[in-house]
Amino acid sequence: MGPVQSGTPDRFADDPAFAVHEGGKLSVRGRRPIGSIADLALTYTPGVARVSSAIAAEPELARRFTWAPRVVAVVSDGTAVLGLGDIGPAAALPVMEGKACLFSEFAGLDSVPIVLGTTDPDAIVEIVAALAPSFGGINLEDISAPRCFDIEARLRERLDIPVMHDDQHGTAIVVLAALRNAAAVTGRTLADLRVVVAGAGAAGIACTKILLGAGIGDISVADSRGVLHTGREDLTEVKRWAAESTNSSGFAGTVVGALEGADVYLGLSGGTVPEAAIAGMAADCIVFSLANPTPEVDPGMAARYAAVVATGRSDLPNQINNVLAFPGVFRGAIDAGAHSITEEMKLAAATAIADVVGDELSAGYIVPSPLDRRVVTAVAEAVAACAVEHGVTRRG
Amino acid sequence: MGPVQSGTPDRFADDPAFAVHEGGKLSVRGRRPIGSIADLALTYTPGVARVSSAIAAEPELARRFTWAPRVVAVVSDGTAVLGLGDIGPAAALPVMEGKACLFSEFAGLDSVPIVLGTTDPDAIVEIVAALAPSFGGINLEDISAPRCFDIEARLRERLDIPVMHDDQHGTAIVVLAALRNAAAVTGRTLADLRVVVAGAGAAGIACTKILLGAGIGDISVADSRGVLHTGREDLTEVKRWAAESTNSSGFAGTVVGALEGADVYLGLSGGTVPEAAIAGMAADCIVFSLANPTPEVDPGMAARYAAVVATGRSDLPNQINNVLAFPGVFRGAIDAGAHSITEEMKLAAATAIADVVGDELSAGYIVPSPLDRRVVTAVAEAVAACAVEHGVTRRG
Repeated sequence: MGPVQSGTPDRFADDPAFAVHEGGKLSVRGRRPIGSIADLALTYTPGVARVSSAIAAEPELARRFTWAPRVVAVVSDGTAVLGLGDIGPAAALPVMEGKACLFSEFAGLDSVPIVLGTTDPDAIVEIVAALAPSFGGINLEDISAPRCFDIEARLRERLDIPVMHDDQHGTAIVVLAALRNAAAVTGRTLADLRVVVAGAGAAGIACTKILLGAGIGDISVADSRGVLHTGREDLTEVKRWAAESTNSSGFAGTVVGALEGADVYLGLSGGTVPEAAIAGMAADCIVFSLANPTPEVDPGMAARYAAVVATGRSDLPNQINNVLAFPGVFRGAIDAGAHSITEEMKLAAATAIADVVGDELSAGYIVPSPLDRRVVTAVAEAVAACAVEHGVTRRG
Repeated sequence: MGPVQSGTPDRFADDPAFAVHEGGKLSVRGRRPIGSIADLALTYTPGVARVSSAIAAEPELARRFTWAPRVVAVVSDGTAVLGLGDIGPAAALPVMEGKACLFSEFAGLDSVPIVLGTTDPDAIVEIVAALAPSFGGINLEDISAPRCFDIEARLRERLDIPVMHDDQHGTAIVVLAALRNAAAVTGRTLADLRVVVAGAGAAGIACTKILLGAGIGDISVADSRGVLHTGREDLTEVKRWAAESTNSSGFAGTVVGALEGADVYLGLSGGTVPEAAIAGMAADCIVFSLANPTPEVDPGMAARYAAVVATGRSDLPNQINNVLAFPGVFRGAIDAGAHSITEEMKLAAATAIADVVGDELSAGYIVPSPLDRRVVTAVAEAVAACAVEHGVTRRG
């Protein structure tokens, strides 16, 4: 555990982030003390044998007499960690521990970080499938595109517990919530919007999917080579899906070209966007520039042209933060006994987040604060109700 | 989670073991509250990125700034659970949760139960190896023989963190501790003893190994077909090792035959032993009859012939309970930064357990109580010192 030797200057002393991480951020404890032989005989042998026997005879009892149904595994292979890239499992672990802390703090769920010493998609699918009896949900995290699409799809197919790649769907849910409120602030509906999605990675594809599901018909998606269209021959499977599902006019230019007259810029790619491109967007346009720590569009510049500006930063208004979504989504799915997290459940989560803002809605307040404890309750209730309504539950 | 519907009689209400298991036995929580945007920015993004970057640049920092080095995974495939057999992962989970509770309660370690939906040894090895970056130790549990020998050996070879199959070595350590004190009570040394080990499964093989390591030269090991000898052609690899390492006289009979004049009966197999066989043992003999809940030798009957009787039961004197070993063994190995748990470390653990009894040693008190908090400290210190002495540590 390496406490610092006395007398040795500690090169990490000046950064409080390291102090918060000293010895790790999580703790597992028994829910009841073991202070007597009787406690021991109930928590462990011989008493536990009666519980195990009962579950062996009637497997559904595992949902009542084990912790598994309430435990979310936060699983990563460390290949796409924050903006740091492929830094491997050990370096990814603090992020996964942090996510587990948030599951506990915000949703009251137990959560275990699992970082894997393999990046082979087949191996990851087999490993997570084998781990499933230990858990009630799988939060995939920081797995690089396009591998993440295949891994998530195969696990969703194989498992009867909720599986969600948060870099895709957590982001997409919060973006949709924010966009719904941004449209309202500017007197539009979602169906009115022409949206340019800059970035065709995990978040870009998932945002495109949820925006289509929410009824936005005019979307263009761009990767580093320009806007996706069906004439391009360099597309991966998911990018081909995106090209076929968006850009109905077949526009074949750059992000800058696509932004001419557009209502919404959704930046998920990093890089920079020239001022002229933002200046050429529609009046009262909406700029979500989510690259962290440096947004693609300078927020100060964007404010000169856009009616609403959002970023991923906590020191600016309208922070698009996944923590608004994932705790409540998993909590609602688990509370309902859902075997999956469907597109409908994600849409319901986005609406619930947007609705928490209520009458206080303004251009500078389109999403709740990440610390607003009303959010997780609203999201969980909406997701659970949606699961029940659509028969996604075990009993449904 | 299934709380009982009001008005519905609960068929589990009469057994307190079920009440203790309601909703599961474990909880994961963050070690620091997240009450402000500043907390969020240190525990999660953007602060966590600085910690992850530092670990990416200098992997050894993971030992200081993640929880992994102090987390023991309790891993089972549910194939040999207590005396219940192959009941599968879901039914095995309460046992693994219980073990995790004990790691927390007795050793102050964090522990995560992992039950696997596969019984294929190759798959188990690959899965656990891939999980290793998440953990500081691997406690294999309730995996059937002979698969457990191969799985443990391959994982010990592959991983640079402590790996121990507790059904083998936890039992062996406590048996050796008890036998050391039983020998002392009866005026013998370990080297004097002629021992019959009834059972050649996980515990029987591991006990044989540690007893050989402790200097007991005259051992016979029996499986359900009789005493192992080199002339038998029905032996698995580990049984062949046992046949070649014991029974130097080549005795080819039954357990009953082997017990004639023996000093120690070590029952790890279930079944029953006739009174005549115990009556025919040496004067002041020692009977360890560890099958649970029904010992192979009735303890009351054994007491008529034996100077010392031990069982696995908590309601009788001299309970041989693994909880005396595994918390301190892992705690000591982890405290020392050991990359392995060696035979020397197991012998040191056994001596430490035996020594806790001290001057109070008697025929009815050869091992400490499972609740004796001195044990984990003594074992951890002995194991850590042994690891350092033998250069088993990362820095060694």
